[in-house]
Amino acid sequence: MSVTPQHSTPLNVADVTVDDPFWSAEQHLARTAVIPYQWEALNDRVPGADPSYCMHNFKAAAAQNASKRTAESSGKRFVPPTYTDRGFNALPEDPANPDADKFYGFVFQDTDFSKWIEAVGYTLATHPDPELERTADEAIDIVCAAQLDNGYLDTYYILNGMDRHFTYLKDHHELYCLGHLVEGAVAYYQGTGKDKLLKAAARFADYVASRFGTEEGKLRGYPGHEIAEMALIRLAEATGERRYADLAEYFVRERGASPLYFEQEDRARAVHDGNKYQPNEDMPLPYAYYQAHQPVADQHEAVGHAVRAAYLYSGVADVARLTDARDLTDAVDKLWRNIVDKKLYITGGIGGTRHGEAFSYDYDLPNDLAYSETCAAIALAFFARRMLQIRAKGEYADVMERALYNTVLAGMALDGKSFFYVNPLEVRPEAALNRDRNFEHVKPVRQKWFGCACCPPNITRIVSSIQQYAYTLGEDGATLYTHLYMGGRARFDFAGAAMELGVEAAMPWSGEGKATVHLERAASGTLAFRLPAWAGDETGAAAVVTASGENEGRVSREIRDGYLYLTGEWRDGDVVAFDFPMPVVPVAANPRVGENIGKVAFVRGPITFCAEGVDNGEGLGRLHVDAARLDEATAEKFTMHAGFDESRTDGSGRTGVVDPVDWDMVRLTVPGWREPVEPDTADDAPVDAPRVPLYRRFDPACAPDRQPVDITLIPYFAWANRGLSEMRVWLNL
Amino acid sequence: MSVTPQHSTPLNVADVTVDDPFWSAEQHLARTAVIPYQWEALNDRVPGADPSYCMHNFKAAAAQNASKRTAESSGKRFVPPTYTDRGFNALPEDPANPDADKFYGFVFQDTDFSKWIEAVGYTLATHPDPELERTADEAIDIVCAAQLDNGYLDTYYILNGMDRHFTYLKDHHELYCLGHLVEGAVAYYQGTGKDKLLKAAARFADYVASRFGTEEGKLRGYPGHEIAEMALIRLAEATGERRYADLAEYFVRERGASPLYFEQEDRARAVHDGNKYQPNEDMPLPYAYYQAHQPVADQHEAVGHAVRAAYLYSGVADVARLTDARDLTDAVDKLWRNIVDKKLYITGGIGGTRHGEAFSYDYDLPNDLAYSETCAAIALAFFARRMLQIRAKGEYADVMERALYNTVLAGMALDGKSFFYVNPLEVRPEAALNRDRNFEHVKPVRQKWFGCACCPPNITRIVSSIQQYAYTLGEDGATLYTHLYMGGRARFDFAGAAMELGVEAAMPWSGEGKATVHLERAASGTLAFRLPAWAGDETGAAAVVTASGENEGRVSREIRDGYLYLTGEWRDGDVVAFDFPMPVVPVAANPRVGENIGKVAFVRGPITFCAEGVDNGEGLGRLHVDAARLDEATAEKFTMHAGFDESRTDGSGRTGVVDPVDWDMVRLTVPGWREPVEPDTADDAPVDAPRVPLYRRFDPACAPDRQPVDITLIPYFAWANRGLSEMRVWLNL
Repeated sequence: MSVTPQHSTPLNVADVTVDDPFWSAEQHLARTAVIPYQWEALNDRVPGADPSYCMHNFKAAAAQNASKRTAESSGKRFVPPTYTDRGFNALPEDPANPDADKFYGFVFQDTDFSKWIEAVGYTLATHPDPELERTADEAIDIVCAAQLDNGYLDTYYILNGMDRHFTYLKDHHELYCLGHLVEGAVAYYQGTGKDKLLKAAARFADYVASRFGTEEGKLRGYPGHEIAEMALIRLAEATGERRYADLAEYFVRERGASPLYFEQEDRARAVHDGNKYQPNEDMPLPYAYYQAHQPVADQHEAVGHAVRAAYLYSGVADVARLTDARDLTDAVDKLWRNIVDKKLYITGGIGGTRHGEAFSYDYDLPNDLAYSETCAAIALAFFARRMLQIRAKGEYADVMERALYNTVLAGMALDGKSFFYVNPLEVRPEAALNRDRNFEHVKPVRQKWFGCACCPPNITRIVSSIQQYAYTLGEDGATLYTHLYMGGRARFDFAGAAMELGVEAAMPWSGEGKATVHLERAASGTLAFRLPAWAGDETGAAAVVTASGENEGRVSREIRDGYLYLTGEWRDGDVVAFDFPMPVVPVAANPRVGENIGKVAFVRGPITFCAEGVDNGEGLGRLHVDAARLDEATAEKFTMHAGFDESRTDGSGRTGVVDPVDWDMVRLTVPGWREPVEPDTADDAPVDAPRVPLYRRFDPACAPDRQPVDITLIPYFAWANRGLSEMRVWLNL
Repeated sequence: MSVTPQHSTPLNVADVTVDDPFWSAEQHLARTAVIPYQWEALNDRVPGADPSYCMHNFKAAAAQNASKRTAESSGKRFVPPTYTDRGFNALPEDPANPDADKFYGFVFQDTDFSKWIEAVGYTLATHPDPELERTADEAIDIVCAAQLDNGYLDTYYILNGMDRHFTYLKDHHELYCLGHLVEGAVAYYQGTGKDKLLKAAARFADYVASRFGTEEGKLRGYPGHEIAEMALIRLAEATGERRYADLAEYFVRERGASPLYFEQEDRARAVHDGNKYQPNEDMPLPYAYYQAHQPVADQHEAVGHAVRAAYLYSGVADVARLTDARDLTDAVDKLWRNIVDKKLYITGGIGGTRHGEAFSYDYDLPNDLAYSETCAAIALAFFARRMLQIRAKGEYADVMERALYNTVLAGMALDGKSFFYVNPLEVRPEAALNRDRNFEHVKPVRQKWFGCACCPPNITRIVSSIQQYAYTLGEDGATLYTHLYMGGRARFDFAGAAMELGVEAAMPWSGEGKATVHLERAASGTLAFRLPAWAGDETGAAAVVTASGENEGRVSREIRDGYLYLTGEWRDGDVVAFDFPMPVVPVAANPRVGENIGKVAFVRGPITFCAEGVDNGEGLGRLHVDAARLDEATAEKFTMHAGFDESRTDGSGRTGVVDPVDWDMVRLTVPGWREPVEPDTADDAPVDAPRVPLYRRFDPACAPDRQPVDITLIPYFAWANRGLSEMRVWLNL
């Protein structure tokens, strides 16, 4: 019996419980540390943090609606936002006394609420919390009160004047706000069954659909920051309303079509504002930053702002799946190849350059200058999951897993209270602490919160819904795909029978575990298990999987595209056991990645490891891996005692704090040697003090005395939890 | 007989002719290509280049003076300059119709003239050119007519309102204009004997002296951009007027004294302008960018803007020499050590970071991100020559020579018509062509001219006066130091006798040559010859030097601090012959320079070499030097056929043009191997096309097939003369 990969959709969050020690700890952090903190932030109650103004803006818009006035009828002065390095921002003249009627913050500030309510929805799905639900319902009441009668819901334009709405799609994020609102509304609806916000989101989507499209008289625009594409597909799937998928398809199909809408918009706005039109100078083509440089079906290289890009590709994959569009499938296949073969960090990060938070050119993957935004890794996981939904293929899950376990989790401290936007693969604290502004984007310790709060709530929403990355159900209704091995129980309808799959696993530290089938009655179908690439080739990996029914011929196996398909009649109590090997693997990069020539990194299972100064002393560049003794590398269990409190006053004004917390993990010991270095001479030493020349004759016969050392490597996601320290993923040979 | 190093001063430019093929070719370029071009630029007659407005401003100020009006009495509207990344700039509202009465350009635009007239002065000293001299005299008439009656001469304030002069020393460059004016005036005076400009410069200096100082009622300020310090010493030495040295000493002594003048000035200006005072955030201390963070005598680490820094240190060395100030000598000694031991590129460049064009922290010497401004290398040569003037020490000349032959000359194309500001040690054209804005300061081909024209005229003035770096005369009047070996004839008074030293040399390609003594009568004294560090240890290097009088005991030798002192009675016809060995030397950096671990660079004599893609194919990062076969490296004579014309239209809008020109030089061949790379798969290839994984298991037993190659290295100064190409100084081992 041969099994063909098929389209599939994730299980509902509420139908999968997570009792895996690793992920339940992460979800616990999201639930108990981040979500409450985030609510305070939305309401501008976090001392020392820049105000969000998010709920302020919704309340102001609600009050304006209640008064039956509009911004124009109130004669309010338009507050033009100021362009900052993070987008358009409007701030009160007197920060101590914001005007209760005005919009403040970034133009996309409404999404702070949407991301929060999305995480709340996931959390309530599995962890009822009446108090949190009441808070959420009250917030939803405020948000819905801000919506205009026609369905429009973006407080920036509601408060500043609807005459200019939809005139600056490129940078003013109205359709991004729509997308996040939909994501939040669907999650809250699925988590609680309450549809007030869902209806509001649908009304906003309907209004947008009435204004955008190829029909005469409609705007032919599309989102400046993508997300609405995948959100609308989700809305279509949640509501069964095809028209939302049509709107998503329109956005995808129109994007980059000639003449370029954003250029026309830029020209029209220049005329309106009395400014000179400035041609867009994105590379490689105008508007590439927005992935709007050419039709999406023609895009083969991942370019521009990495989060925008991967959000778009996620939406394109969704549209391709729903519409069976070969040209779009081909586009995402090629974009996937471009990213995975040429633009992906070994940590699962994407978007190598800080400039535009963007993809750089092929094979340009700088370690120390890396941007590798947390949100971009999250977006890559979105994209990968959607590629899996098109067809199960081990590589998609391998990349998704790598992004999740490494860069995504690195974005949050082990106490859940501080965050990285930027995830470099090499950090020298001197550079990061602003002695060299080339590295000013690199923070050596995580930050408490951000005025532009995208990464922390993005981590919350993906961690709170991690179940949806573990399982998808095939469209035949009789194929369950297990993509990630995660302890917990998944409930789903399996060929007409209610199945519950109870999984025990110890990822990411061990590849051993089992899945137990619970069925009310026997049912025939396929349980498909991913064969992780880190466990070796498919045949070898499949050999460590055994299923109860195989010996008696009740269940047969097929290996295909990195999945083991176990097909046949399943009975209550059947067990699928696995014990994937998890050796320590030294990795080399394609030599086209100039940055990593002569270097090696270490992975074990899905985890990428790194060296920290706190374990290895300073000067990580002088540590060398001993290539002749690589087989002596070992892994061992280890409890990291995280926590520090450094109130540095070195001019950078940065303070690092992680509350004390112990995390069980695995660390590696790799044989190496340290390049000796002569003592540094202080600048104020006497001029005749011994000096170490900066340059000297290189004589291979006088190679430096190799001092053997054991190099300690910790999981990348756990770095910067023990204080200010050097860090390096790629080690010199 | 023991000889102690002594203070010394350079010979006059006019007293030394240069017939050395290498330097006379460079001087020829400066004289025939750059100086005439520069004059056109000063007069805004270069098509396609941003106007300088330099002569425009002088004419406007002269006309205003002639009309007996002032800016205030004319009721002119002040044109506030705008801060750009290169300084304060004021541009006409309609570029096609600049107002003849107004100031335009950078606030320091007057110095375009001063740098030009300085180079003209040097050139006329050895190459009379009546037409050029007439042009120069006419320009001087205009400049002098712009001077106010009180001696003040900075057209920015003359044209904008003298009520605000000397209120923004930190960034408005008035004292920088003074410094350059003095440098130009002295050079023109020494080259032509004409003192009109010298007198004008002296009057400006006198006015400044009347306004600045520690006396009651005077301003306690000092230059925001240093140069006046060394210029005033030069003025003092040229005129014999001690008061100019006193002013220089005041500037040096007051700088960084508490309370910080620039902070007081910033506060006062904030009050005047009604702005909020913004604390300066330079690292490591406020105002370090200006080297004004602490008293100069306490400064031990080179910090801030590299050109400013090395100009200051040059002035400090001059003041230390003239005043025998131990604390200042100690400061420059330590600053020198800091630069040479921790912050100097192997190309003689300094100032590693583009941000602030500044020194970074110790041992931070990035190759690809390097700023290494041409002017900073010139400034380092200034500093080194002045250290030599304090005491002859081989290291000073070694560094000076390295800066001159490598980064300084790299700043100019071999046709003398295009220029680099930035001199990286590694260039990937993809990065530089703005695919990655981390590298937007790096130009892969030289540029025609610059709106902020500092580097091209700075190259002109140092190349045109290169003689002054070759020889200095000791204060005993009977010691001639030869620091650089340069073909030509030097005339000087030697112990009361007129000596002419005729030098034949073939630097930088061969260490062989001789110096012939021409004397009207025998004279006793010392001829001191530098023993270059590249020729081996002192004893070995001295062993290849022979002097006529040695055998007969008329001349004795002493080796001291990198110089061979030949002392005794010299007679007409005496010959000092030398044949310094010039092996190919592989060089390693101090392992604290993380950037260069596992890498090697090649030098031969004073020349640092580099690999270019045009010789070695693309992917220079995949070239490895074969450490086991280093002794097979060879040097050979080579004629570079420079010249290309690339009108690229890749969005960067940059065009590279070098006129065809042949240059004789030496190239190296170094045995190495190339790391193989699988063919790249195009992004639009079918999805099932063969793919090359980005990461794979590293297995030292399956080391890549080493493809032996001969690596071709050319002199660093000659890179980017044959088209767009990769370049790399430090090669992987």
